[in-house]
Amino acid sequence: MPPSPIRKLVPFAEAAKKRGIKVYHLNIGQPDIETPKAILDAVRHADIKVLEYSHSAGFESYRKKLASYYQRNNIDVNHNQIIITTGGSEAILFAMMSCMDPGDEIIIPEPFYANYNGFAVSCGVKVVPIPSSIENGFALPPIDAFEKAVSSRTKAIMICNPNNPTGYLYSNEELQVLKEICLKHNLFLFSDEAYREFCYDGRKHTSALSIPGLEEHAILMDTISKRYSACGGRIGAFVTKNQSVLDAAMKFAQARLSPPTFAQILGEAAVDLPADYFDAVHKEYTLRRDILVSRLQAMEGVTCPLPGGAFYAMAQLPVDDSEKFCQWLLEHFSHNGATVMMAPAAGFYATPGQGKNEVRLAYVLNGDDIHAAMDCLEAALKEYNKA
Amino acid sequence: MPPSPIRKLVPFAEAAKKRGIKVYHLNIGQPDIETPKAILDAVRHADIKVLEYSHSAGFESYRKKLASYYQRNNIDVNHNQIIITTGGSEAILFAMMSCMDPGDEIIIPEPFYANYNGFAVSCGVKVVPIPSSIENGFALPPIDAFEKAVSSRTKAIMICNPNNPTGYLYSNEELQVLKEICLKHNLFLFSDEAYREFCYDGRKHTSALSIPGLEEHAILMDTISKRYSACGGRIGAFVTKNQSVLDAAMKFAQARLSPPTFAQILGEAAVDLPADYFDAVHKEYTLRRDILVSRLQAMEGVTCPLPGGAFYAMAQLPVDDSEKFCQWLLEHFSHNGATVMMAPAAGFYATPGQGKNEVRLAYVLNGDDIHAAMDCLEAALKEYNKA
Repeated sequence: MPPSPIRKLVPFAEAAKKRGIKVYHLNIGQPDIETPKAILDAVRHADIKVLEYSHSAGFESYRKKLASYYQRNNIDVNHNQIIITTGGSEAILFAMMSCMDPGDEIIIPEPFYANYNGFAVSCGVKVVPIPSSIENGFALPPIDAFEKAVSSRTKAIMICNPNNPTGYLYSNEELQVLKEICLKHNLFLFSDEAYREFCYDGRKHTSALSIPGLEEHAILMDTISKRYSACGGRIGAFVTKNQSVLDAAMKFAQARLSPPTFAQILGEAAVDLPADYFDAVHKEYTLRRDILVSRLQAMEGVTCPLPGGAFYAMAQLPVDDSEKFCQWLLEHFSHNGATVMMAPAAGFYATPGQGKNEVRLAYVLNGDDIHAAMDCLEAALKEYNKA
Repeated sequence: MPPSPIRKLVPFAEAAKKRGIKVYHLNIGQPDIETPKAILDAVRHADIKVLEYSHSAGFESYRKKLASYYQRNNIDVNHNQIIITTGGSEAILFAMMSCMDPGDEIIIPEPFYANYNGFAVSCGVKVVPIPSSIENGFALPPIDAFEKAVSSRTKAIMICNPNNPTGYLYSNEELQVLKEICLKHNLFLFSDEAYREFCYDGRKHTSALSIPGLEEHAILMDTISKRYSACGGRIGAFVTKNQSVLDAAMKFAQARLSPPTFAQILGEAAVDLPADYFDAVHKEYTLRRDILVSRLQAMEGVTCPLPGGAFYAMAQLPVDDSEKFCQWLLEHFSHNGATVMMAPAAGFYATPGQGKNEVRLAYVLNGDDIHAAMDCLEAALKEYNKA
């Protein structure tokens, strides 16, 4: 695995800070929203004498609550169909390990979450990208593209819905297309639904696990990281109704003994948060999205489709090479004593040369900071293109 | 992976409890020692507003403290040579992923910790067992056995020192043998040192990472689980001086984002426990070992070498098949309203048929309970062999 374009920028960001320049971090999906105090308090007040291993699938009490959460979200599963994982990351790893052998192939629309590559390498699995495009807002590629990509080694299709990095929210119709192709070629559908609650403009999220007919094919990979601003907890979930996949995943879960106890307590408490907990968070992210996208769309030469979900936007910039531009922003530019760090999109494409003039922006800062960051970017683009 | 013999017994243990029978659990390495209050308090009082991702290698502050801990233990590493992992389990996984390709072979003296199999399967790595024997207390197999097992695909030798399941503590001389063979064939030495502090009879532990000449070959896999009775925290460490292995492991660490934050706080606080913290724990385990082993050695037909470390003992019983005997103990036997659960040793051998009349006993209960469990076992062996 080559170092990602984001990681290559880190030393430049550190150097900028040393020079006294404020860096607006739009490069990573680390929300600034406070973790709900009630769930942190659940950890603080937990009565632990011996910090024991938990069940390898996670606390039964937590899985039962989580099953009720999924049921409220139209995903009809019981607690025995849930394995609590160490972050969404481990759920992805379990999915690949349980459903695929070394040399098998997984089709993923690109751009995609760069760490999928790392897990694929871990399992000896080959990622086969098919292109989605900024021109239609990164909608699902047409069914022909999937058909062309399927080989005798293809075992699964992976989606992230709503999508990181594009913010695209797949429609029910698009999920039906995926269903068709999965049933036709007997493929698993791995669905990363980390951003389930982050859907905008009144649109509703459709889970892969809620689609009739896909019960044996759909694997849901979940996490509490974004939903409750609890990234450091490292709690996610692997959910499927396919018993033989569950059995295989349980063996990997048993090998690593158990998921982290403290964060399971946090996750369990999170299920009990008041039903309106997410309303304020949702309102805040909608506001941030609207500021970010309207500012980007107002810049000359910038294309930025309105994302329907998650908290990312992809933008095409009037630059030749967004990696170079992002580095230049950190190395040579400041505006009112500040600059912006963004993720060069090349890191989200498996096809070399794709996304070269695109960046991903995470709207994880408050509105004022996003405005200030956009002031920087706007000034930077003018200066960069003059130089 | 077939289900392990221990897991097959779980339903029988549950059924016994439902019948009102007390089950003494000598089958798993879950200590009953209380987690130090000071380190639990560190988590309770942590001032967290946003539960963020940590550095993928773990908090720098924790790694710096851990480096000082290792230095006190004659392991000369700095904080950049440490990656904090999600339990010792992830350290094992990182070692295999970073040093081996699918199809590569790893030599492990058997019996060995059964979960090594699970990680090997995850990575497509082939385990090549070489036998150690209860007759000499499970000492390191002779160098010839290693020589015979080395092939063109061999990349590493794995040891657990002190050993789970045998309790054997490798001597400095045995580590020199391992050094010789690793250097001769350019193999990595993976050293699982989860039980470093659990050494008895005044003997000292030698870390693979403290052996001059093995700097580029030794990978230390560590955990706080046993040392501080903190199994549920899921914090371990991957430590090596080999920079290219570190670089590879960091990529896997970055793909899974970060180790759990709460338990890192716990682990960091643990390094600051008073120097004599472990004295009482050590005394308690010595007492338990002495009770367990003297009771076993006094039983007719039982062989049990005195373990030099960890908190396990292997015993050979006067039975044909310890799996059947262990199941019978749970299904059909009780003594004073109680019975014993032990781990059939077959699960720790990769070679079919090995260890059939052996069991592993974890001395993780207090002295009175160990006495009561041994009363059960003694009565059971008499009854079983009459039947």
